[in-house]
Amino acid sequence: MIPFKKALDIIKSSTTALGKTEVVALSSSLNRVLSQDIVSDINMPPFRKTAVDGYACRMEDLSKPLTIVEVIPAGTLPSKTIEKGMCAKIMTGAPIPPGSDCVVPVEDVEMLPDGTIRFTGDKPKSNICELGEDIRIGESPILKGTFVKPQHIAIMAALGCHTPLVSVQPRVSILPTGDELVEPNLIPSDGQIRNSNGHQLISQVIACGAIPVYDGIIRDTEEITERALSKALNECDVVVLTGGVSMGDFDYVPKIMERLGIKILFDSIAVQPGKPTTFGVAGSKLIFGLPGNPVSSFIQFELLVKPSILMLMGCNAPYQPVLRLPLATDYSRKRAERLGFFPVQITAESMVMPIDFHGSAHIFALANANGIASIPLGVKEIKKGDLVDVRPI
Amino acid sequence: MIPFKKALDIIKSSTTALGKTEVVALSSSLNRVLSQDIVSDINMPPFRKTAVDGYACRMEDLSKPLTIVEVIPAGTLPSKTIEKGMCAKIMTGAPIPPGSDCVVPVEDVEMLPDGTIRFTGDKPKSNICELGEDIRIGESPILKGTFVKPQHIAIMAALGCHTPLVSVQPRVSILPTGDELVEPNLIPSDGQIRNSNGHQLISQVIACGAIPVYDGIIRDTEEITERALSKALNECDVVVLTGGVSMGDFDYVPKIMERLGIKILFDSIAVQPGKPTTFGVAGSKLIFGLPGNPVSSFIQFELLVKPSILMLMGCNAPYQPVLRLPLATDYSRKRAERLGFFPVQITAESMVMPIDFHGSAHIFALANANGIASIPLGVKEIKKGDLVDVRPI
Repeated sequence: MIPFKKALDIIKSSTTALGKTEVVALSSSLNRVLSQDIVSDINMPPFRKTAVDGYACRMEDLSKPLTIVEVIPAGTLPSKTIEKGMCAKIMTGAPIPPGSDCVVPVEDVEMLPDGTIRFTGDKPKSNICELGEDIRIGESPILKGTFVKPQHIAIMAALGCHTPLVSVQPRVSILPTGDELVEPNLIPSDGQIRNSNGHQLISQVIACGAIPVYDGIIRDTEEITERALSKALNECDVVVLTGGVSMGDFDYVPKIMERLGIKILFDSIAVQPGKPTTFGVAGSKLIFGLPGNPVSSFIQFELLVKPSILMLMGCNAPYQPVLRLPLATDYSRKRAERLGFFPVQITAESMVMPIDFHGSAHIFALANANGIASIPLGVKEIKKGDLVDVRPI
Repeated sequence: MIPFKKALDIIKSSTTALGKTEVVALSSSLNRVLSQDIVSDINMPPFRKTAVDGYACRMEDLSKPLTIVEVIPAGTLPSKTIEKGMCAKIMTGAPIPPGSDCVVPVEDVEMLPDGTIRFTGDKPKSNICELGEDIRIGESPILKGTFVKPQHIAIMAALGCHTPLVSVQPRVSILPTGDELVEPNLIPSDGQIRNSNGHQLISQVIACGAIPVYDGIIRDTEEITERALSKALNECDVVVLTGGVSMGDFDYVPKIMERLGIKILFDSIAVQPGKPTTFGVAGSKLIFGLPGNPVSSFIQFELLVKPSILMLMGCNAPYQPVLRLPLATDYSRKRAERLGFFPVQITAESMVMPIDFHGSAHIFALANANGIASIPLGVKEIKKGDLVDVRPI
């Protein structure tokens, strides 16, 4: 049984970015990891422009009526230089005409009967966005390794990156094992249980931007297990087993591992739930053996498998951010020899309220959870108001 | 200029769930909204089962050696009743044999030379999961209106819901307007700017589970604008305009609105950025006019458009959860007549650190932001350590 931090370190040092890239359309880069820095080919703003609808003029002329010499809509170049007593009607985003040093907003202006205008505001401001004040040619606001969100799409569009280079998506084989499993469309008979892990893991793989590969439940025989594992290692970058086989409950498992060149790096972590989690490598391929209980497999996927998938894509922030929030009520447990995780609700006041939870088979506890909180190894009790680590789910 | 809360109320009372549903495969229900309660057709656990690998026996016999009468792997029914002095070797998840009232874990057992076993632990526990302790037939752990995440997929799989009924995805027309816009693959010439809003909005629509419809930039003429808006209203449930046309900068806009039966319900909100945000309806269709500046359109989409899209799908929690976290440094602004939003970093200590931000055109400020914090109307200054509302992005 190794500490959780040690398990993370072993996985990290066993994981090398795939290094394979592809070019995609801008909108297809959402939830992908960039394989290039986004470099600006322009200055932004690309020209001095007005931040408001109004009248471009000289600040020193504001005490007198001004004559409108032209109208400058957005997308149009000014044709006149603003001189003493002149102004140009100008719309938000349009280029500032030469000679002017401010734009008075339309709401601070009175139209006089002779067609001239008069400034009626109190404190004149420039209301001019300077050339390059947001970004300059050659700057990189987004770096290689960024996991792309909608706000990054906006920036890439602004900077002309219309076909970004992204990492290829790792293929992740999902291998739920067990003679007791039946698929969700069947009614379990005595001693059977539905395969919830497999489908949960498929959606967890999709949610972190990779490609799930699933060929059905793996029955507990040496031949079937070896064939499935061998195929998965050939076709995929990551293999996620769940259930008995991955825990080594069957005596043929070590033989299969040896024949397939799988080297087990740990087979037990001081975490709860998820203690019998196994991790191994076969060359550059990563093999995770997750417990058969669905809460264990859910949490250990989030904690261990997801970061390794993101690292395979070269992501520069593979670990999910952890919030530190106050506990809404006392929390305790009987034994403290493992780092503990439990489902919680983050309340409207950002307090952490534990949810009724029967243990690692109690997947229904996650129906209304929006976070997984943790209690450190060695700690049996946390008091109301104490800060706890919480991962939003 | 109406208060932000009033804008939310107007949008909510104008939005009716589409009510159209479709059946999808389980894995395709990720990021969709359920149109049915998920009702359990089974008890879970479906039978009394062991929570550990060990030996099923009678607690009163634990002081003496026990004879192993059978082995019960997961997925196999017990064939013997456990009587005085007997035990059955049993694997995690397997059914408890009749007669036994506890399972002693394998690590608390010593194997004796004669093949019997002896309990070596100190405090015996039952280690039995009772039938139905997690869920009973007829219970609904997940209700209609739930936005489906991976943990819900696990629960649906466990309960036999393999083809869930979900809401159809609303179609959202993206109409960036402006003669100054060019697409990201072009180099803007003087007075031009790249269309970042359109592509940002496409990815924001995808991220909230709806279908974006985008046919390119809309030029500022009456004919083009009317044709695009008319097509969008015919084909889509929601229309999102950005730029000048949606702000009514052009005098033909009111005429087009009237001809197309669009009723404007508000055209200005006391928020910053995003003040000139417009909202209208045409029958059951929703029309949002967002400002042309990318930060404004990004934030107002998250605050206003996303909840309305989720409501169209019947989502029972359409508003993004808001965290309340302490500010990492003092924050102030000059004017306070609007509810203000500003990009922030949520730090490792869950403090809120404002990011250098030049205003609504400064989309690059969002590159490293992971939250949008708010400062209430009427408030000019927030002190370090005070709690602020933050929306993770």
